[in-house]
Amino acid sequence: MNNFTFQNPTKILFGKGMIKRLTQEIPTDKKIMITFGGGSVRTNGVYEQVTTALRDHRFVEFWGIEPNPKVETLRKAVSLARERGVDFLLAVGGGSVLDGTKLIASAIPYSGDAWELVTSGRRPQEVLPFASVMTLPATGSEMNNGAVISNGETHEKFPFYTNYPLFSILDPETTFSLPPFQIACGLADTFVHVMEQYLTTTGQSPLMDRWAEGILSTLVEIAPAIRKEPHNYQLMADFMLSATLALNGFIAMGVTQDWSTHMIGHELTALHGITHGQTLAIVLPGTMRVLLPQKLSKLAQYGERVWGAQGSDKEKAALAIDRTEAFFRSLGLATRLSEVNVDEETIAEIERRFETRGVAFGEANNVTGAVARKILESVR
Amino acid sequence: MNNFTFQNPTKILFGKGMIKRLTQEIPTDKKIMITFGGGSVRTNGVYEQVTTALRDHRFVEFWGIEPNPKVETLRKAVSLARERGVDFLLAVGGGSVLDGTKLIASAIPYSGDAWELVTSGRRPQEVLPFASVMTLPATGSEMNNGAVISNGETHEKFPFYTNYPLFSILDPETTFSLPPFQIACGLADTFVHVMEQYLTTTGQSPLMDRWAEGILSTLVEIAPAIRKEPHNYQLMADFMLSATLALNGFIAMGVTQDWSTHMIGHELTALHGITHGQTLAIVLPGTMRVLLPQKLSKLAQYGERVWGAQGSDKEKAALAIDRTEAFFRSLGLATRLSEVNVDEETIAEIERRFETRGVAFGEANNVTGAVARKILESVR
Repeated sequence: MNNFTFQNPTKILFGKGMIKRLTQEIPTDKKIMITFGGGSVRTNGVYEQVTTALRDHRFVEFWGIEPNPKVETLRKAVSLARERGVDFLLAVGGGSVLDGTKLIASAIPYSGDAWELVTSGRRPQEVLPFASVMTLPATGSEMNNGAVISNGETHEKFPFYTNYPLFSILDPETTFSLPPFQIACGLADTFVHVMEQYLTTTGQSPLMDRWAEGILSTLVEIAPAIRKEPHNYQLMADFMLSATLALNGFIAMGVTQDWSTHMIGHELTALHGITHGQTLAIVLPGTMRVLLPQKLSKLAQYGERVWGAQGSDKEKAALAIDRTEAFFRSLGLATRLSEVNVDEETIAEIERRFETRGVAFGEANNVTGAVARKILESVR
Repeated sequence: MNNFTFQNPTKILFGKGMIKRLTQEIPTDKKIMITFGGGSVRTNGVYEQVTTALRDHRFVEFWGIEPNPKVETLRKAVSLARERGVDFLLAVGGGSVLDGTKLIASAIPYSGDAWELVTSGRRPQEVLPFASVMTLPATGSEMNNGAVISNGETHEKFPFYTNYPLFSILDPETTFSLPPFQIACGLADTFVHVMEQYLTTTGQSPLMDRWAEGILSTLVEIAPAIRKEPHNYQLMADFMLSATLALNGFIAMGVTQDWSTHMIGHELTALHGITHGQTLAIVLPGTMRVLLPQKLSKLAQYGERVWGAQGSDKEKAALAIDRTEAFFRSLGLATRLSEVNVDEETIAEIERRFETRGVAFGEANNVTGAVARKILESVR
């Protein structure tokens, strides 16, 4: 096991009817900005629950944080918040709304431009307190300090790290209005979050391995049932909890991590606007195939424990990769670039970007532009 | 899944050489009281590491917090701390030292007597900041807000809840000097902490089930290896991480809990001074046997997933109970009351105490004095 430090201060309020706890969780002397996405919370009752809980609080609303939140949109929120003297942010919606809000909360007290905060790679020194009502199980943003921010002008998409949410409210009933494609992408996103922290080398921590496999097995178990019954409270609660625990540090203690699938996926989103979870479902099987020699023993363990594979390590690994791709297909997602109209030109551009930036990803720091090309070519 | 709230703010610093981080983790303007047990930290190098890291801090030392810390001892620490103007506590040692320190930190700013804080059942309003260097994997106290405090005069032992440690430092190397019996008791304690949160009903949360089973399987896997190689860093790191994650709330989200084995075990310690982990190894198989009808389907799941049991639920449950008792015996622990010289008189006293207090434990609130008697009779 590697040395590590761990701290996650976010408070989770989980379950039916929990949105009304907003009344107590935010002090009444705060001037709140509530941030929203495109308006689905108006039709599913979440907007009403939130504003009712905060009827004795002062708040302004900011609407229109898009999927893959753009710094151009977030700058507008920063201006409005400064103008109105906002000192508390509440994100209501999915991971994109919260990711965007993390940058807003960090940029309000910052003297420079918001995009500078993203590209600097440093954690901001001062951040306004923020919290969330999370309505889409996927990103895990509700209990971590990460965000992913896009730049519409440069077509770039980068991770950004700041403070943790003070609290996040998760009511599985708020997921009942999600379209099937978003649920599928959320399942894939959660699955790949686990894989990025798990599919490296064996023997670093038997407990972290089992916890990662525990989330994967849970997703494999509940996904087909969710496809049939997307309004089943227990199933959506299991999914929601899995999404939160997949990326809050609980399965990352003392183990190395990968994240190359995400870094390649981000480029597909930046260049083509493809939904994040969909990009991961395409890239991960490619990462597994191309890095098979390096990840062989972990792939075999994964195959055996999650998919019941038997035989030699090579046989178990091969079955594991096939089953993983089949799992994504069973969710209704594409697993090939051709299905989402991505061709050689994009592969070349991603290779070029990685080479120009001089980056290399993965637990062995060997996923360069050339390796990213191989991965993408393998899932053409 | 049941509704729940979760928050655990403790920072964990885990690994070789982490004790030197004390220098930065405690502000230099603090007046620290370092609390210790019986002196083993003087011979295993921990005392020197701690005092070296704090050489530019002001601190006083308090020695002699005993296993199953007594309020009589802790009152002395409270007096000394008040006298010296202490405003930060650092527990260095095992779970008992930290449990005692939790009460000291709570009692210093309290106007009444420390035992009153324990028996009131309320969380104290003001608590001094405290942290730990944890050297014994067992209680999980390093990342939770609980403690168990004994009263030497009345021979009582009760749980007590207060704040979380600000931080806990866990260096697996500090466990190398532990005697085999303490390691065995720590393994049993960790195992039973998981069981108290797991062995109730099925179907509340598939993910929490898998995480609980993940800790149990890890312990089953590493325990025989630890018996052979108690100075193996990786093994002791796995054990230490398992002990922390077994009782920090991570496996308790949205599920009901039992804790009757602990409540009966506490009485065996209060009346006979038997080491906590040893009491649990005796009581748990009894709890499983007596409550088998109520816990049948969870026992069967546990038998299948942790012990590879096959057959009917009854067969799987029966094998699970036998294997659990055999596991404790393989650690070198007693699993029968007669082995620790506990007889009918004590059983009668425990029954009487539960009846007098009007308490009933377990997920169904049905472990009364009479049921506790049955459990104890089954492990005579």
